[in-house]
Amino acid sequence: MELGDNRYGKAGIRLVRVDRDGPEHALTDLTVSTTLAGDLAATHLTGDNAGVLPTDTQKNTVYAFARDGVGEIEDFALRLARHFVDSTPTISRARVHIEQHNWDRLGAHSFVRGAGTRTATVSASEDGQWVVSGVSDLVVLNTTDSEFHGFHKDEYTTLAETDDRVLATAVTARWRHTGPTDWALSFTAARAALLGAFAATHSLSLQQTLYEMGRKVLETGETVAEVRLSLPNKHHFLVDLAPFGLDNPGEVFHAADRPYGLIEGAVVKPGAPDPGLAWW
Amino acid sequence: MELGDNRYGKAGIRLVRVDRDGPEHALTDLTVSTTLAGDLAATHLTGDNAGVLPTDTQKNTVYAFARDGVGEIEDFALRLARHFVDSTPTISRARVHIEQHNWDRLGAHSFVRGAGTRTATVSASEDGQWVVSGVSDLVVLNTTDSEFHGFHKDEYTTLAETDDRVLATAVTARWRHTGPTDWALSFTAARAALLGAFAATHSLSLQQTLYEMGRKVLETGETVAEVRLSLPNKHHFLVDLAPFGLDNPGEVFHAADRPYGLIEGAVVKPGAPDPGLAWW
Amino acid sequence: MELGDNRYGKAGIRLVRVDRDGPEHALTDLTVSTTLAGDLAATHLTGDNAGVLPTDTQKNTVYAFARDGVGEIEDFALRLARHFVDSTPTISRARVHIEQHNWDRLGAHSFVRGAGTRTATVSASEDGQWVVSGVSDLVVLNTTDSEFHGFHKDEYTTLAETDDRVLATAVTARWRHTGPTDWALSFTAARAALLGAFAATHSLSLQQTLYEMGRKVLETGETVAEVRLSLPNKHHFLVDLAPFGLDNPGEVFHAADRPYGLIEGAVVKPGAPDPGLAWW
Amino acid sequence: MELGDNRYGKAGIRLVRVDRDGPEHALTDLTVSTTLAGDLAATHLTGDNAGVLPTDTQKNTVYAFARDGVGEIEDFALRLARHFVDSTPTISRARVHIEQHNWDRLGAHSFVRGAGTRTATVSASEDGQWVVSGVSDLVVLNTTDSEFHGFHKDEYTTLAETDDRVLATAVTARWRHTGPTDWALSFTAARAALLGAFAATHSLSLQQTLYEMGRKVLETGETVAEVRLSLPNKHHFLVDLAPFGLDNPGEVFHAADRPYGLIEGAVVKPGAPDPGLAWW
Repeated sequence: MELGDNRYGKAGIRLVRVDRDGPEHALTDLTVSTTLAGDLAATHLTGDNAGVLPTDTQKNTVYAFARDGVGEIEDFALRLARHFVDSTPTISRARVHIEQHNWDRLGAHSFVRGAGTRTATVSASEDGQWVVSGVSDLVVLNTTDSEFHGFHKDEYTTLAETDDRVLATAVTARWRHTGPTDWALSFTAARAALLGAFAATHSLSLQQTLYEMGRKVLETGETVAEVRLSLPNKHHFLVDLAPFGLDNPGEVFHAADRPYGLIEGAVVKPGAPDPGLAWW
Repeated sequence: MELGDNRYGKAGIRLVRVDRDGPEHALTDLTVSTTLAGDLAATHLTGDNAGVLPTDTQKNTVYAFARDGVGEIEDFALRLARHFVDSTPTISRARVHIEQHNWDRLGAHSFVRGAGTRTATVSASEDGQWVVSGVSDLVVLNTTDSEFHGFHKDEYTTLAETDDRVLATAVTARWRHTGPTDWALSFTAARAALLGAFAATHSLSLQQTLYEMGRKVLETGETVAEVRLSLPNKHHFLVDLAPFGLDNPGEVFHAADRPYGLIEGAVVKPGAPDPGLAWW
Repeated sequence: MELGDNRYGKAGIRLVRVDRDGPEHALTDLTVSTTLAGDLAATHLTGDNAGVLPTDTQKNTVYAFARDGVGEIEDFALRLARHFVDSTPTISRARVHIEQHNWDRLGAHSFVRGAGTRTATVSASEDGQWVVSGVSDLVVLNTTDSEFHGFHKDEYTTLAETDDRVLATAVTARWRHTGPTDWALSFTAARAALLGAFAATHSLSLQQTLYEMGRKVLETGETVAEVRLSLPNKHHFLVDLAPFGLDNPGEVFHAADRPYGLIEGAVVKPGAPDPGLAWW
Repeated sequence: MELGDNRYGKAGIRLVRVDRDGPEHALTDLTVSTTLAGDLAATHLTGDNAGVLPTDTQKNTVYAFARDGVGEIEDFALRLARHFVDSTPTISRARVHIEQHNWDRLGAHSFVRGAGTRTATVSASEDGQWVVSGVSDLVVLNTTDSEFHGFHKDEYTTLAETDDRVLATAVTARWRHTGPTDWALSFTAARAALLGAFAATHSLSLQQTLYEMGRKVLETGETVAEVRLSLPNKHHFLVDLAPFGLDNPGEVFHAADRPYGLIEGAVVKPGAPDPGLAWW
């Protein structure tokens, strides 16, 4: 039997950094996951670990690198991914995925947790490095301006067509850069583009909203070459109040957990360069 | 064998209401749970359900009552709890617990989910009704101004004393009212009191912070007679970077999941009336 | 403002013990939570921690006590709860709650995780000690022999009466002992009683099933004085296949997540002694 | 901007089927997710839904197809995936992913939920169909016969080498078939191979155990061409009891949640045919 593709790393490293310079403290709250690949046949086939950088060491590296400051998560991930590839002989690829948890300032050294997560995924090899920025857990809802009709019908179709429904989703979006940029500014612009497009699109399908969201993110900067979106359709069903002698003019909804629609798609700039290992 | 205390109801009713009056829509997103008790021996002992109002009916009632508007969750819970007691012969007690999920406005009919949850728990019987307001999932962190020392030591104590640690918790607070008030204003004031006390208290123990938070909530209004707080101590451990030749002057932390401290306590106004069924 | 009831402790202590004596290893996998109460006003009011046994010490104690073996979780909890009360001057009450995760043997030193959790909650004070055994996450389903009809109807009732439905629940049961017993045997008998009563009861309501389950647990031993059950009614809805020209004679169901019914009740032996701090 | 890869479907369809033929009922408990792809540009670009089979219809189809029986999940997924491709003009690819939840028999029509999940993922296009069987949530632990030493060390390495540690993981395994087989028998053999290899391998690294598990699954049948495994390394840390005057000869462990190692790899039969859309 042959060993196929393989990789390993440390997942869920919880790093909190406090910057104490200046009159106000700054707080950086991350969950970091590292993934390495390369010439790892020996440990699989014979248990010879000479080429294995322990996942415990990967964790230590994350904490040690944070000593000098984290900065933007794209930069921190770049430092880490490059280090793993350059310093470990057997490792030819590294991926560092970071989730940054959102905190709002309460005071000079006090914070309250906000919603939503910023993400970065950096891949590095001897041939280059690739940066994907993103956002997750961005939950949005439109109370109107959403329709769904004219769809394909078959013998199993019972869904009524509608020209006014609630549209809700939890946005996971990732966008691939072709080069460095001001990561903080870029993120702020991309997040605003996602929210703006969601709110402004009169939607005939969640797919149409997805495309508009992707398109608007691509317009936020030259470095952004491709956007991938995953949008669960969090269904809100109008409750039938007729048995109680009541109408329900689009006011009372049941929010369902499962099942949910799941709409996934990419929007790409014409002529975008090959993604390389960006989505590895 | 004898039947002891018993109750039943519907948990996890997901109600979303859209108010479409005026140029801007309003969004109310609730998870409602109902609990009824009374003379329910027959269904337990013989399966005679003549006194059982089905949990499905309880769910229907929640949706039907929302047709006329929800308003403040304390008022909505009062309407529901009173209805169940007054309209069902076997039912002598009802409790309605509501979690209100937080949304921030994006546009005239667009919203983005915020952090934190507002809660209300209303109990009703033939003798009266009791309102408990609250908040949950309010996650806060201080980067300094927290000490912990001078504690009791025994043969199993290894914890070092510290005069500077990160203090983080996820606040669950509930406060009991002695009568009606402006629920929205009261909630805003109580939440601000919790955040303000957390940020402003130079803490020698999480218990001290808890007491200050409760005290400040009590000061927000005449109706508030008692506050109960549950504060997990979300430990942040300073990472030992010495093996890498680095110091760590309170900057790089590991945020642990489990185990966690759990601090629970009540603060009560002197002369507060008996809680009755408030905490039932 | 006055300090009301308060308590503190360490939650979620993950303890795994391996017994290496004999040809086969034994595995004990626990999540332990400790809760202490007593004269703790100083730490709340002034931050004086002289009476506070740190939650870190409580965690250490759990691990240290495991060195000599864990045995049955009721015994382990008794040792711990008694220790905290007897050795800490300010502490007058202790509660130790243990969840034991289930593993099945694969080999002499290999195990596979099974379903379900055994629990014990022991409370201790200077006046005595109280043992509550239990089970959680015991998910059961009957495909027939469950009816629900004859219930109270009001203007919000739409539920159809049925003489054949799926009945499913996730059992959380706790039973109070009046004295020591063979904990392992007692648990096995109680779990079997719960499963046997669930399967054998032709149910006219989940309340009736609850009562039968409680009754059968009480019959398993002299020490068992009271049983408390919490039974979510995990609804299975028959799917309407008529739009597709198909009948559905009780075969195809949608299993719903939320909302769910929640049935809670106690069954008590006549003349059972006062529970004391058992349910503290 | 250009539309890139895209797909959509319904996730989390909860289907429970009761077979009532014969003296004993049979229970099938599934979570089904469907994913379709094809010529879907119009709905993204203009909101023209003429080519969109609603996710609601996909859900209906799953329930309707269950009317005739489910059988093995591979067969059920094949029927569904083929149907979506053959009956919807715009759809050129379909994937049906099924999780089968495990229940043990308690009686003729009574069941108790067991641990672990069986999975199947079937992809279909006009060119063929591909079956991947699998298992998830299979949590296993060895108390000994696991070593980890001889690994690569750098300036961030602090991990001690060990010749005896606890090895625990939650197995997610998926194996690709090259043609039809007796799915039930094949699954039973593959699961037994996974468990047997985990228990029997004297492990020098989790990678070595992974390879052995994959190799043993490949040996279970001619149709099995490739196995992909994802193994979180659920760390168990020996607790330092020295501060309490106690040794700890491999007996008392802290089971950590995060971070965890994550080992992923494939094992392939020499000459295995191209995977086609198997892993799409």
